[in-house]
Amino acid sequence: MDFKSVIHALGALLFSIGASLLLPILVSFIYDEGDLMAFTISLCIIVTVGFLMWKFTKPGDIRSREGFAIVTFGWILLAGFGALPFVFAGATNYTDAFFETMSGFTTTGATILTDVESLSHGLLFWRSFTHWLGGMGIILLSLAILPMLGVGGMQLFKAEVPGPSVDKLKPRVQDTAKILWAVYVILTVAETILLKFGGMNFFDAICHTFGTMATGGFSTKNAGIPHFQSAYIENVLTIFMILAGTNFALHYRAMKGNFSSYHKNPEFKFYVGIIAAVTFFLLLSTRLNNYDNYLTAFQKSIFQVASLITTTGFHSTDYELWSVPAQLSLVLIMLIGGCAGSTGGGIKVVRILLTLKNIFVQFKKLVHPHAVIPIRLGKTTVSQDTVSDISAFLIIYFLLFAIASLVMAMLGLDLVTAASSVISTLSNIGPGIGNIGPTENFAFIPTAGKWFLSFLMLAGRLEILTVLVIFNRHFWVK
Amino acid sequence: MDFKSVIHALGALLFSIGASLLLPILVSFIYDEGDLMAFTISLCIIVTVGFLMWKFTKPGDIRSREGFAIVTFGWILLAGFGALPFVFAGATNYTDAFFETMSGFTTTGATILTDVESLSHGLLFWRSFTHWLGGMGIILLSLAILPMLGVGGMQLFKAEVPGPSVDKLKPRVQDTAKILWAVYVILTVAETILLKFGGMNFFDAICHTFGTMATGGFSTKNAGIPHFQSAYIENVLTIFMILAGTNFALHYRAMKGNFSSYHKNPEFKFYVGIIAAVTFFLLLSTRLNNYDNYLTAFQKSIFQVASLITTTGFHSTDYELWSVPAQLSLVLIMLIGGCAGSTGGGIKVVRILLTLKNIFVQFKKLVHPHAVIPIRLGKTTVSQDTVSDISAFLIIYFLLFAIASLVMAMLGLDLVTAASSVISTLSNIGPGIGNIGPTENFAFIPTAGKWFLSFLMLAGRLEILTVLVIFNRHFWVK
Repeated sequence: MDFKSVIHALGALLFSIGASLLLPILVSFIYDEGDLMAFTISLCIIVTVGFLMWKFTKPGDIRSREGFAIVTFGWILLAGFGALPFVFAGATNYTDAFFETMSGFTTTGATILTDVESLSHGLLFWRSFTHWLGGMGIILLSLAILPMLGVGGMQLFKAEVPGPSVDKLKPRVQDTAKILWAVYVILTVAETILLKFGGMNFFDAICHTFGTMATGGFSTKNAGIPHFQSAYIENVLTIFMILAGTNFALHYRAMKGNFSSYHKNPEFKFYVGIIAAVTFFLLLSTRLNNYDNYLTAFQKSIFQVASLITTTGFHSTDYELWSVPAQLSLVLIMLIGGCAGSTGGGIKVVRILLTLKNIFVQFKKLVHPHAVIPIRLGKTTVSQDTVSDISAFLIIYFLLFAIASLVMAMLGLDLVTAASSVISTLSNIGPGIGNIGPTENFAFIPTAGKWFLSFLMLAGRLEILTVLVIFNRHFWVK
Repeated sequence: MDFKSVIHALGALLFSIGASLLLPILVSFIYDEGDLMAFTISLCIIVTVGFLMWKFTKPGDIRSREGFAIVTFGWILLAGFGALPFVFAGATNYTDAFFETMSGFTTTGATILTDVESLSHGLLFWRSFTHWLGGMGIILLSLAILPMLGVGGMQLFKAEVPGPSVDKLKPRVQDTAKILWAVYVILTVAETILLKFGGMNFFDAICHTFGTMATGGFSTKNAGIPHFQSAYIENVLTIFMILAGTNFALHYRAMKGNFSSYHKNPEFKFYVGIIAAVTFFLLLSTRLNNYDNYLTAFQKSIFQVASLITTTGFHSTDYELWSVPAQLSLVLIMLIGGCAGSTGGGIKVVRILLTLKNIFVQFKKLVHPHAVIPIRLGKTTVSQDTVSDISAFLIIYFLLFAIASLVMAMLGLDLVTAASSVISTLSNIGPGIGNIGPTENFAFIPTAGKWFLSFLMLAGRLEILTVLVIFNRHFWVK
């Protein structure tokens, strides 16, 4: 491990995040609610620490293990230092602030705040802004950095990255980043304008846009989206959640005029198919049990499907009042997650798709034991190695889920809440079912549980292996 | 598909099962409780149908697809015809009788009977005897037939079969069967004698032995094992459940004097390790919360661990009164199941072991991307194909679990009971948690649910793929 080059890169990251506090400082200055000092002190500390880390180290060779270390410790430092404004402003203790900030940067959206509206505008803005920055980081990570590090299944998407060819990606990470971030910014501006049209003030519009584009889910209102009582706003959010759960490389191509890239992409087609099928099922179920007209049932259904499959975690209604099968189908799509290369978390649509294809191949093999049956994704043949990696990922995911549920149960949570809190954080969703349902929050979780769930948010966001590899003895030696 | 040879084999199977009704007829004759006619009519019908199926068809080439068809439809016919005595004796309707008999032959032990003790001794004997016959079938299936059919992961155990070498197994299936069944009969006799010593009458001793050796779980008492109020009986059951969950090939070698085969077998060592670890955890938990001395806590803990990991499903106490972490750890071992080549159901210990080894390899690969790291089981190197097959099996298992839970929820069960009823039947355990906990039963499940759970018992017992392949279009053509 080349510690110096890792610390050098982490220093630069911290410095940039410290500098990004200038935006909430501007908000704080405008609203003048007494939190200016908290932000200013935080900025000074973060920028200074970042600068010192960067100054007294040297850039070196970044091999894969240094890459893993930078990514994992980078996110931990972001949450660790990003929590400072909450503490200095006296809003929460450090544990809660760390949980909230980790939830922000990992685009989870789980909150320990029982009264969001009591926060100053500056803190609310920073809270939502952590989503947006985290989403930006995730796009870069999933489309440029993880493929280089060879993390399970993601190699596949090298070819999906626009611009430079696969082999020449490394020296041009910055170019790729610029292209993808341009798409991210354009969509952010568009959604903010559309929400403003729907009657939100500019502050709420931009904060909810941050929550949408990052598939995060923080709101500025205690009641969340139902506060606005606007079907128009819910529909805008639905559309942008679905867009945010899509591979950003496809949006880039569409903006270049190549709209066919959407319907040529097998993952996107499957993603839309799942959304359509589950929405149809929920439409029938909620029309029967909850709503007296089809339009409302449709809007509420597709909103919730979009919110949970993309792991955003907004709610437009208390879906715990829906029927048990409806709730269970929501749990199942929570497990699927967004497309690879999107800001969505979870297992990812392409992994589910390839897994299903692999299952069909297994059946064919039983009937034709000696046939060689390739797995195809569009025009590409997927290697057996990639399929094995994906299977291993799924199993690690469920194993971690099982162990983590046991840990949460040992901390005193009931069975449903324990399992649900783990899925919600590991898949970076936010609210779940049980005592952390759409109308509740994570405030009542014991302190040890908050730290453990923070770890799960990190692990889930960084595709699990990236984080767990840190615990491998071999990682540190040589 | 060579239908004639399939029907020929199924006819022979039916004929044998019909003939096996002679034993409950003997019991019925001794106790003289008015069910003699029901058994006699059933015997005549089953033997006649079997004979006709056998007589008017010819034996042909049994390729793998005929093998699958015989195994799957064989178990369905067993349950379908084995249910007749219950119906003719007026004990239950056909749906309940089918559920109960499928539960028997698949060694599940889930029951729809609310008052077991109201059944005649003849029916009680037949009910427990279906376990024992099913267990016998499973040993043959898992150690001789499935490896020939190449079902996921099981190829591995070809080498575990005693006697003939792998290549020469096929012509000598009968020899292998005889050897394994001798072991099964010896253990059955031993357990019956030991239970008799503990104060059970001969009838209860043999019925509970059937339930133990097949890892089934049917009892002859409404209260189950707590009826006998004997720590000695519980300890005997614990030991024989653990033996029944062990690969029978190891017992065979031990009886030949080769005791070292136990501790040379990586699956057995892992199986014992899991039992020890979970028992230790439960000992601490139940000593703290439920029992006032360590001996009772230990006996109750190891009984429940043995019962649930082997998928027997006996209970010596209402474990739903234990703490949530204790219950959750029981759910986790339910998912593991017995060793391959045992009568235990579930995922199987060796699959879990190889999966964990594969996960470690994945981590090592992240740090050393170009290293070739083989997975070993004892002295054998496991092929990548086998590991892939196991991963696919696990994913199919969890996918089926998710879909089936959704189906049960749609039939009106609450979330925990829906998921629990699926695990209990798919892993052939019997009781679970929620409304089908140790002190409840499956009587309240709607009719459609009983048929669906019967299907899950079948699928789980026959390693899932064996059953699901029937639904593959390619299976039937050519």
